[in-house]
Parts: sequence; C-alpha cells; structure tokens
Amino acid sequence: MNKPSCVWLDELSTQEAAKAAADGTVVIFPVGSVEEHGAHLPLCTDSIQSEYIAVEVAKKTGCLLAPAFRHGICNAGHNFPGTISIEFDTLFMVARDVLSELVRNGFCRIIVLTGHAGSSHMTALKLAAQEIIRRKTSDAARKPRIMVLSDYDFADELSEQLGFPKGDGHAGAIETSRVMAIRPDLIKGKGEKCFPNLPRFEVVSDPERYFPCGVMGDPTAASKDKGKAMNEYIVEQVAHLVEELKKD
Amino acid sequence: MNKPSCVWLDELSTQEAAKAAADGTVVIFPVGSVEEHGAHLPLCTDSIQSEYIAVEVAKKTGCLLAPAFRHGICNAGHNFPGTISIEFDTLFMVARDVLSELVRNGFCRIIVLTGHAGSSHMTALKLAAQEIIRRKTSDAARKPRIMVLSDYDFADELSEQLGFPKGDGHAGAIETSRVMAIRPDLIKGKGEKCFPNLPRFEVVSDPERYFPCGVMGDPTAASKDKGKAMNEYIVEQVAHLVEELKKD
Amino acid sequence: MNKPSCVWLDELSTQEAAKAAADGTVVIFPVGSVEEHGAHLPLCTDSIQSEYIAVEVAKKTGCLLAPAFRHGICNAGHNFPGTISIEFDTLFMVARDVLSELVRNGFCRIIVLTGHAGSSHMTALKLAAQEIIRRKTSDAARKPRIMVLSDYDFADELSEQLGFPKGDGHAGAIETSRVMAIRPDLIKGKGEKCFPNLPRFEVVSDPERYFPCGVMGDPTAASKDKGKAMNEYIVEQVAHLVEELKKD
Amino acid sequence: MNKPSCVWLDELSTQEAAKAAADGTVVIFPVGSVEEHGAHLPLCTDSIQSEYIAVEVAKKTGCLLAPAFRHGICNAGHNFPGTISIEFDTLFMVARDVLSELVRNGFCRIIVLTGHAGSSHMTALKLAAQEIIRRKTSDAARKPRIMVLSDYDFADELSEQLGFPKGDGHAGAIETSRVMAIRPDLIKGKGEKCFPNLPRFEVVSDPERYFPCGVMGDPTAASKDKGKAMNEYIVEQVAHLVEELKKD
Amino acid sequence: MNKPSCVWLDELSTQEAAKAAADGTVVIFPVGSVEEHGAHLPLCTDSIQSEYIAVEVAKKTGCLLAPAFRHGICNAGHNFPGTISIEFDTLFMVARDVLSELVRNGFCRIIVLTGHAGSSHMTALKLAAQEIIRRKTSDAARKPRIMVLSDYDFADELSEQLGFPKGDGHAGAIETSRVMAIRPDLIKGKGEKCFPNLPRFEVVSDPERYFPCGVMGDPTAASKDKGKAMNEYIVEQVAHLVEELKKD
Amino acid sequence: MNKPSCVWLDELSTQEAAKAAADGTVVIFPVGSVEEHGAHLPLCTDSIQSEYIAVEVAKKTGCLLAPAFRHGICNAGHNFPGTISIEFDTLFMVARDVLSELVRNGFCRIIVLTGHAGSSHMTALKLAAQEIIRRKTSDAARKPRIMVLSDYDFADELSEQLGFPKGDGHAGAIETSRVMAIRPDLIKGKGEKCFPNLPRFEVVSDPERYFPCGVMGDPTAASKDKGKAMNEYIVEQVAHLVEELKKD
Repeated sequence: MNKPSCVWLDELSTQEAAKAAADGTVVIFPVGSVEEHGAHLPLCTDSIQSEYIAVEVAKKTGCLLAPAFRHGICNAGHNFPGTISIEFDTLFMVARDVLSELVRNGFCRIIVLTGHAGSSHMTALKLAAQEIIRRKTSDAARKPRIMVLSDYDFADELSEQLGFPKGDGHAGAIETSRVMAIRPDLIKGKGEKCFPNLPRFEVVSDPERYFPCGVMGDPTAASKDKGKAMNEYIVEQVAHLVEELKKD
Repeated sequence: MNKPSCVWLDELSTQEAAKAAADGTVVIFPVGSVEEHGAHLPLCTDSIQSEYIAVEVAKKTGCLLAPAFRHGICNAGHNFPGTISIEFDTLFMVARDVLSELVRNGFCRIIVLTGHAGSSHMTALKLAAQEIIRRKTSDAARKPRIMVLSDYDFADELSEQLGFPKGDGHAGAIETSRVMAIRPDLIKGKGEKCFPNLPRFEVVSDPERYFPCGVMGDPTAASKDKGKAMNEYIVEQVAHLVEELKKD
Repeated sequence: MNKPSCVWLDELSTQEAAKAAADGTVVIFPVGSVEEHGAHLPLCTDSIQSEYIAVEVAKKTGCLLAPAFRHGICNAGHNFPGTISIEFDTLFMVARDVLSELVRNGFCRIIVLTGHAGSSHMTALKLAAQEIIRRKTSDAARKPRIMVLSDYDFADELSEQLGFPKGDGHAGAIETSRVMAIRPDLIKGKGEKCFPNLPRFEVVSDPERYFPCGVMGDPTAASKDKGKAMNEYIVEQVAHLVEELKKD
Repeated sequence: MNKPSCVWLDELSTQEAAKAAADGTVVIFPVGSVEEHGAHLPLCTDSIQSEYIAVEVAKKTGCLLAPAFRHGICNAGHNFPGTISIEFDTLFMVARDVLSELVRNGFCRIIVLTGHAGSSHMTALKLAAQEIIRRKTSDAARKPRIMVLSDYDFADELSEQLGFPKGDGHAGAIETSRVMAIRPDLIKGKGEKCFPNLPRFEVVSDPERYFPCGVMGDPTAASKDKGKAMNEYIVEQVAHLVEELKKD
Repeated sequence: MNKPSCVWLDELSTQEAAKAAADGTVVIFPVGSVEEHGAHLPLCTDSIQSEYIAVEVAKKTGCLLAPAFRHGICNAGHNFPGTISIEFDTLFMVARDVLSELVRNGFCRIIVLTGHAGSSHMTALKLAAQEIIRRKTSDAARKPRIMVLSDYDFADELSEQLGFPKGDGHAGAIETSRVMAIRPDLIKGKGEKCFPNLPRFEVVSDPERYFPCGVMGDPTAASKDKGKAMNEYIVEQVAHLVEELKKD
Repeated sequence: MNKPSCVWLDELSTQEAAKAAADGTVVIFPVGSVEEHGAHLPLCTDSIQSEYIAVEVAKKTGCLLAPAFRHGICNAGHNFPGTISIEFDTLFMVARDVLSELVRNGFCRIIVLTGHAGSSHMTALKLAAQEIIRRKTSDAARKPRIMVLSDYDFADELSEQLGFPKGDGHAGAIETSRVMAIRPDLIKGKGEKCFPNLPRFEVVSDPERYFPCGVMGDPTAASKDKGKAMNEYIVEQVAHLVEELKKD
C-alpha cells in the first residue's frame, strides 16, 4: 500500500485492508445528506463538504475513509423537492453496521464525520457509536474508540473571525463559500438572503413555510477565499483528532 | 439543466430536481458492497461496476442517478478482512427510504441496479421495492414502477459468447475483466484460480473455509477488452430498460 | 420408541424426545404454503409435497419431523383467492424460534425442507438458519449444522429426464404429477396450460395479471407415474443428506 | 365442493376458496403447542385436542379450518426436553398474518381455537385479533368478527360434573382423558400424580423445579369415556359459536 | 437515610441509592393506568390504589418505591374519553428497562405492583420480568427475583367476606370503596350500577357498547370503611411478600 | 370542573375529561428522569423541576397536566448508582402513545415539558411529536399542535442575569437553587464544585470517569432566592406558550 493517493478503504484489497487494520490505521466514515440547499447550491452540499474534509485529512495523516453514506435525516428540508430524508432507525442501523464491521476488522479508531448536523441525525450517529462502544469485548481485544462530529462543529468556531454574518446557517454564507472552494462547478447562482424565524419549540410538519427559499443565512455574502480558509481550518482540526486517536 | 455531464441527482439544486421529476426523468439507484474480491481486486469491486454502468446509461439516456449506496449483505465473503456486511433489515430500510422519497419527489420510474447479487441482498432490495409498489396511492398520483436487477443478470447472458470459463463467479474472469476496463489502477495482480465446492444446502458460518483465496473462478483468464465488451453490452441492456420505463 | 411409524417429533413424550436428541437424531422441519395452484390443484400443494417427502425420508432413515409449518411468503400468487401469504419477518421468526428450540433440545442436525421455493421465502429460512449457526456456543456444546432446501432443488434435476416440458413451474406438469401420486383425491381437474411472460426485473403489485389462470407450465402433461418417480428420486436425495448429517 | 369430508381450507382450490368466502363460510384457525405433557402424553397434546374439536365442528357445521399452527408460547414447560416454545412476537405475527389474509380473502367470521391456554399465549392471539378488528375498513367491506378461545374455556365448565379432580390441569386427568379418546395410540403410560405449588406471583426461570414430572393434576384418574364426553361437549359449544357467527 | 418518610427511591441521592442497594432493599414498582372509571371515579383510579398500597407497605417494611408508571394497556376502556392506553410493546419496554436498571443498580428483589389488571397489561409486565430473570448472569452476581401482581389479586380474596356484590369489577363497589378511603376528594358522585354482558370470546373494537356508563359492578354499594379494610388487608399481604423477598 | 386545584388530567372523570377536551384545554406532559445529581441532590431532580413548573403553569392558565413520566435517557449519568436510564425507543414509544391518545381524546394543543435535556432524550421526544404531527388527519379534525421543550431552554436565558457561574450545568448552581426553592427537604448537603472536561466528540462508555462526583458546575454557589426567581421566570415563559396555543 505505498500508493499515497489511495484514501478510500474500499479501494484496498482484502489483504491490504488486513494490513491497514493491523497497523492501527484510523478510519473516517463520512456521512452527508441529500437535502435542498436553496436555488444556488446542490442537494449534495452536506455530502461534498464532509467528504472533501475527509479526503484532505486522509492525504495529510494517512488515515483511511470508509465509503461515504450520502443520506441523512432531514427535518427542516424534509418537504422540499429533491430532499431524500431517511428514517431515524435507518441511519442508526447503517452507522451501527458500518462501525460494527470496522471494529470486527480491527479498525478500532474511528471518526464519523457528518456534513449534515441536524439534532436527530447527530443523535442517530451517536447512539450507533454508543452501542458499539458499550459492547462487551474480550479482554484481549482492543477497545474501540469512536468520535462523532460534524465539520460544522469546527466551522462555527471560525465563523466570526472570517467575518461571516451572525446567525448564518443552512445554505448560507459559510456553506456557499465552502462549496465555492470545493466544487465551484456546482454553484448555480448567488442565492437568496433569508433569516427565517422558525418556531422555537413547536414541532411542525411544514417547516418550509418559514423559509420557502430554502436558505437560512446570507449566501450573497459568500466568498471562495473564505471558504478555502474555512476548509483548511477544519482539515487541520480533524487531522488533530486523527493524531489524537493514533496515539492511543 | 443543460449540462449533459450532470448525471447525479444530488448535484442538482432543489428547483432542478423538481423540474427533472416533473419531466418524468428515470432514476437509477446504484448499490454495491464492500467485500473481499481476492488479492487482485479491490473491496469496491461490486460498487464500481454498477456505478460505471449507471453513469454510462445516464449519459446515454438522460436518466439521473441517486447517490450510490456502497454497502451490501455479504454472506460468502462475510468473514474476510475488509468486508463490511450490513444486516438484512438495514439494506431493506435504506432501499425503502430512498425509493419512498424518490416517489414522494415525483420520480416514479426507478431502477435499482446492484453490482452485488447475493440472494439475501437481492431479496432485501426487492422487498423494499414491493413495499413501495404495494402502497395505496391516491387516484390522481402516478403509480410508481420499480425494477430491481444486478448488472450480472446481463453479464451472465454474454459470458459464454465472450469465452469466459464456465462456473466463473465471484472475483473471477468476468469481474476482473470488467474492473480492468473500468478502473485499471485498482488491479493489484493477476489473482488466483479457484473453483470451490461450497456446500450446496448447508448454511455455514465459515464459508471462507471453502475458498480461502476469496475467488470463485479464474481471474487469470481476464482480459480488458472482454471486460469492455461486457460493460458495453450491459450498458446497452440497461439503457433499453430506461427507455422502456420512459414510455409509460 | 420402538414404533417405527412414529416419525413426528411432537408425537413423542418429553422423555422420548430427550432420548432422541441424545441419540443424535436428525430432524427435518417441513415448510409449505397456502397458495393458489390453478383450478386443478389445492392450496396446500406445496405443503403436501414437502411433508410427503419428509415422512418417507423419516421412515427410511429414522430421522424425526418437527411439526410442519404450512404458511409461506407468496409473491406471485399473493393476490389470488385462497392464498394466505405471511410477512418476511414472520417466516423468519418462526424458523428462527423452531431452529433455536431444536438446538436447545440437543437436536443439532436439522434440515429445513420447503415445498414452496420463492426467493423471499428461501431467504427468510436461510437467514434464520444463519442466525442460529452464527450464535456463539460454549466449547463443550455440539455445533449445530443446518441445511435449507426445497424439494424442487432436486425435482429440477430430474425434470428433463422424465420428459417434463421446458419452463414448467408453478402448478405445472411436475407439481401436478407429484400431487397425483401423493393425494390423488385432491386433484380437481386437468388444469390449464400457460407459459406466462412475467416481467423479468420489474417488481409488480399485480403479478396475477400475467397468469390469470394461476399456472406457469402445462399441467395437462402431468402423469401419476412420473410424479411417483420424481417423488422417489427426491426421497432418495434427501435421505442422502440425512445420512451425511448423521456421519458428523 | 360437495365433498363433506373436505374441512381443511387449504385442500380447496383457489376457485373453491373464493366461493367459500363468498358464501360467508366461518373459518376456525386451530393453534396448539409442542410442550412436554408428562411421561404419559405426547408433546402434541395441546395441538391434537384443538384440532380434533375443530375437525368435528367443521363436519357438523360446514365451517372450514385454516391449516393448524402447532407452536405456542410455553412458560411453565419451557425448559423441559421436547418443548419448542416460540417468542411472543412470533405467535402474534403468525396469528396477525393469518387473520389478515383470511379477511383479505373475504373470510370475515373467524374463530381462533387454541389447545394451549397460557396467559402470554392467549394474549398474543387476542392482540393479533384486536389489530385486525381495529383496522379501518372501507364502508362497503364486511366488518370482520373474530373470536379467540381455548377448548379449555369449555372443558373447565364440565370438569366438576364429570368428576375430575379439583385443581386438575396440565397433563392431568382431563387432558389425559381427552387424548385417550382422540389418539389412544399416543398414550404412553398412566402418568404420575402431582399437584405442584408453583410460586403465585414470582416470575421464575426454572418453573420445572416445582413439577419435575411435568404434570399438574392426576392423570391416573383419567378415563377414555369421560374424555369422549368432554370432547363432545366442547364440540357442541364451539359449534354454537360457529352458528352464532353465521347469523351475522 | 434515617428519614423514615422517604419511601421513593428517586428522592434518594446517588450515594443513598448505592447504600440501599447494598443493603438488599426490596423495591416496589407501582404501575397504574389512565382509564375511565365511570362518572364517579377519576381516570387515575388504578394508579392511586397501587401507589397507596406501595407507600403503606414501604412505611411498614422499609422497602423503597421506584417512580410510579401511570400508563397502562386499556382494552375495555380503550375508547372512552380520558383513557390514555399505551401499546403492548411500550409497557413491556418500560417495565423491562426499569427492571433492568434496578438490577444493574443491585436492587435484585423487586415487586411490580399494578392497580390495573387487564390480561394484556399483566402479560406485558410478566414478559418483561421473564426477560430479566432469564438473562445470563455471572456466577458472582446475585440472581434477581421479581414478583408481578395486582393489588386485585388480594382484593378478590376478601371480597365475599366484606360483603361486596358478586361479579363486582371495574369501577364497582370495591374500587369505589377503596378510592373513598384513599382519596375521598376525587369521588365525584355515587356512580351507576351496571353488570354488563361483554362478549365472552369475541374480540371487539367497541367494548364500550356493552357498558356505556363505564362501570362493571355496583358502585352504589361502596363504603369507605370496607375500602379501608380492604386496603389494610392488601397492605398486609404485600408486606408479607416483601418480607419473603428479604429472607433470600 | 370548577375545582381550580385539579390540575392533573387523570384526576378528572371520563366526562370531565371529555368536557375539558371539547373546551380546547391545553395539556402539558411533564417528563423527567431518575439520574444521579451529585451527593447533594436527589435522583428525581429533573422530574421535580419540570413538574413544579407544570403545576404552577396549570394553576395560572387553567391548562391540565398528563401524568408525569419520570424516566429518561441518561447518557452522562448512565453508570452512576441510582440512575434508571431507559432506551431511546422506550421513551419514543411512551411519548408517541401518550401524545397519540391525547389527540384521540381531542386534546390537540400539547406541551411536552422535560426537566432532563440530554440530546438523545430531546430527540426521542421530538421524533414522537413529529410522528403525531405528520399523521394524515381527516379534513374535519382539528390539526394537533405540539411543542417540545425543556425548562432549561428558559433557565439558560436568565442564568447570567441572576449571577450564576458560567458553564454551570448538571447538578450545579442553577439546579441546586431551583430544588432549594421547590423541595428544600430533598437537599442533602452543599454539593461539590466540579467543572469537568468531558471529551468533546468521543462517545465514551464511562463518562463518569470525567466527573466522579456527578456534578458539572458549582452547587456551592446555589441560593434559594435565585432558584425561586428562576422558577418564576420559567413559569411565566411556559405560561406564555400555553396562551399562544390557546389562541389558535
């Protein structure tokens, strides 16, 4: 396995995978969504961000990537055309099975990195990790360690410093900037500014009523350079996590 | 959406997706697996075959591709290093959710195209399609039509004509040839010939015992040209199915 | 237990069952269906075939029969009058529970013999067997061995030799012949010839549209003698499997 | 369908079944168990009693019998050799599917008659019936009516009059007498008298500790004539229920 | 924990709970229902009876009470205004989780005491106890003991002696008397006498049709003194069970 | 129903409940947990806070309270003595059933108010509400509106103004202050200050390792007066929500 460009676990052969597991290689499992992101961004917006970060981190740290899962639980964007939202149990089971099999293979240091960060979506991923972590293991076996995070956990840290608008969110300036830096060919326009007032506590069946343009933020304030800076920062942070997992 | 190269549904914006659905665009949902395929082929062997076919068919027919799902139910290869096998219910639920959401979006002509073709795997996909097909729909709604097939349903038709060995199967001459034509960079050697006698009826927990090299067939008989011919034939056949679905 | 005619496990007393298990007796679990089989055959056509085979094999080999389960998953015949189709999960759970309890009793050599052979039906039975086989057992315990097959796995082998029509299937010449030999009193007429073109890949909600008479084959070509020959052949083959299981 | 001996629904053809449903024929679904019944009775003791009653009622009233389900939930007899106890959900699902399909077929007057009468077992059957009964039906459809009972609901009524011992129960005088009248060939001895004190409220994992002989009652007090009288009484009572269902 | 008035487990601190578990303290888990009880009794009638008994037993014996669960499975009262009936699986899971966690905490002597006593409701509680009891435990661990009962198991014993009407049941003389003694402020009138003929075997979707007043018995025959006597008797009996569990 | 003190829905009779539903009465469903809260607070800390708020809001606004559910999903406190943590599915099902039955009763304006606010716990409650909200209803039926919130959604708003320490959380100054104001008799000491560094992303099986005293914050900074002020503020805020729901 001296091809440094081979970052995807499933591009390895069975023998190469066995060796990578024996070497204690960290694995990132990128998760995304198929969800409307306004008129200016593609449905895969969440997916390509986490996958981009994962690939860059893999190049930098030598970790591997499990095949990406591009479907997520979409609550706010649930009823928009193009959204493919999966059930809570479905996401839980996919994550549980993938994590379980990685651990069976001996890949015991794993990061689930999701570009979509809704609370149900995050909970499903965390509960899946929890199930794996809590499983009884034989004494000889290496105890698995699993992190679950969104690249937006880091994006939010840098948002103010880069001058992004307050309250920027779904399909807003940050997401647009990041996609401009990752896949400029998928930018379909400038987007529409919208800072919606979604109900604070009420669980509604028609959230789209509150942001019919599908945007929460100001995509017109986006900039490719800022997106690039943001992406680089996140890559650096996730790479730190990989290094932390390598240590123990 | 006049970019002919945009074949992936999730690279569209929400508005573009709405238009594509209104236009009656056929959607292919490619499914694969992460499964050992001998020492000479990558774990993604099943995935890249169905995805390649799907992309070529999309280019040819103007249909769209739902994001690929690269995990499958692996029985024979279950215990080999690198295999990530998911539960029956997990595959069923992913397929059911994706099909359900495509239909909700108005994409009512769908082909599930899987590169992995184990019987449990196929059953899970077919039962998911069945659940969607059997759902009561309002009279006004367009009744969905869903096909479920493996590219190997067609590959087997041409096998003899192209001179492939009899009994060739998993990681054998055909798969190796096809991967040689699709992703030559992922070929890791010549492979080992093996025509195993798996138990005909017994359900065993250690099928790897019967083909420790992970091959069922003769990969040394592979040829890139034959793989190309095979791929072209399958593209043509699946394209026919898309045209059939377009008609009604 | 010197009554050779006692082939049904549940006609034993608890003590007799304990002894049979301790003796390593093989158990066959016959499964059938309640499904339309044209105007000339009864709904229990699948059930009586596998049960007949099982009884004859038991007489020949001394194995025992778990009480038959006469319900199956019927896809093609799903909507015909008289069909009682059960859910995938239901069949899976019945088979899992029965196998699990047989193994708990010490019956560790089991054949699931089904007269119905649809792919969902077979998959449910195989997955149930797989769950039992994969269970961790203590080192002292005898590891269970389970075979899952349809009597039609053998019937098809002899079909050409006995001169049955090509493409003969559901309620066709073979099934009719076999029922003529087993329960002639249940033959209700000559039946109607029909070689339907069911959709090759499409999962449809109204398969009956393609064979309204409920037949796939030519029941008019049936013969009691051929049915008898076929049954005898299958008994012989299944008896071989029992002997194989007895050995180890 | 002028063969009066044809009492089993699945011995009909699809057309005959359609006619029977259109005629409003009542269907009995016999349920049993595979459970230890002392040294003197077979494991199928519960099954053969309910099936015998069902057959006799069918002969008398012209109702039909769905194929019997011979597996039940066994709590007290759970750990004895020979017992095959299924899970609560399994029994529920089998009953739900069978009832659902009977109703789909137009068989809307149904009696579930179980020879095993444990409280979990009865609850599973009743909940299944409840699910079917509560389903929304179109206005045009005939509303289903379902009864769930054990033949022991009636047996207990006559017990004192026939002079059976007080507190007689599982594998005791009544069961033994009834089996003597139904299948004398399956009587394996006189049985052992035992009136155990099972814990009144405690849920225990080893109930067999309290009645190691597997009997609760006095089988030595059994008599074929009394069994016959009991069976006749129950046949009469269940026949009344069928007549009641026929009326409306 | 020298406050004798502290009978509720969840009023303890974590340290106090640890000590109570180490001391082998018995825990009662009171379960009730929200179900119509005629015009004269509150919906919480079942809940306050079992909770009252539990509190008095705790004062008397030093056992502790897990927080009460006030929702049950209501079949007969299902469709009345005010009833909140939960699904079978829901009650099972709540009971299983609470019992499982109590045992994890070291509380291994538990009584589930329910004021509602419908057969589905009781079965759900017993199956939950059974699951916990049957779990494999390490040899060192104390094997849990769990009792499941209704206060009406004892109430019925004393009914005749106290002169309550025969056939008295739901919202009748006994329940009314007991509530008069426990929470006289919740008595809303004298109630209406009704001895309904519910179908003996038929599972109906509208049981309220048979007792539109919501009463099965004669609440006008209620007396606070009798209620008090009844309550005291039940407290005494349940206290005996606690003492029995303390011993071993 | 002119007894203003009757705030609990299940203290009503069936007729009173019918009237309250017809009057459009808002219902609050209080949810809590049984979770360690340091050495100084009881396990019911979460429960008594939400129940206190709910009772006060009911007194103020005339809304009703469904019986409280005192069990929650506890991740951080999972392994401490005394914690009774339930499964995700269990909480979901309880909330779904209770909400479903409230809506069936005609109570279509509901607030789920939880004192425990972990993310899995909140997600389970929100998904339950979502399932009810998304259900198809007949046109005539009143569409339900459901809010899901924690009293801590409001507590955090006032925290700084009342001078509570930054980063105060579980069993810290705010919770301690509030319990001092609600149930001073349950305060068991001053508590221990602890601002733990829990892993930011890693899902761990032993979170207690990071805060062995069970506290996240500074309970020694608690004050009954501040707790009272906090409680009053939350009551006011939740009362506003009730009024908002009353309007439409």
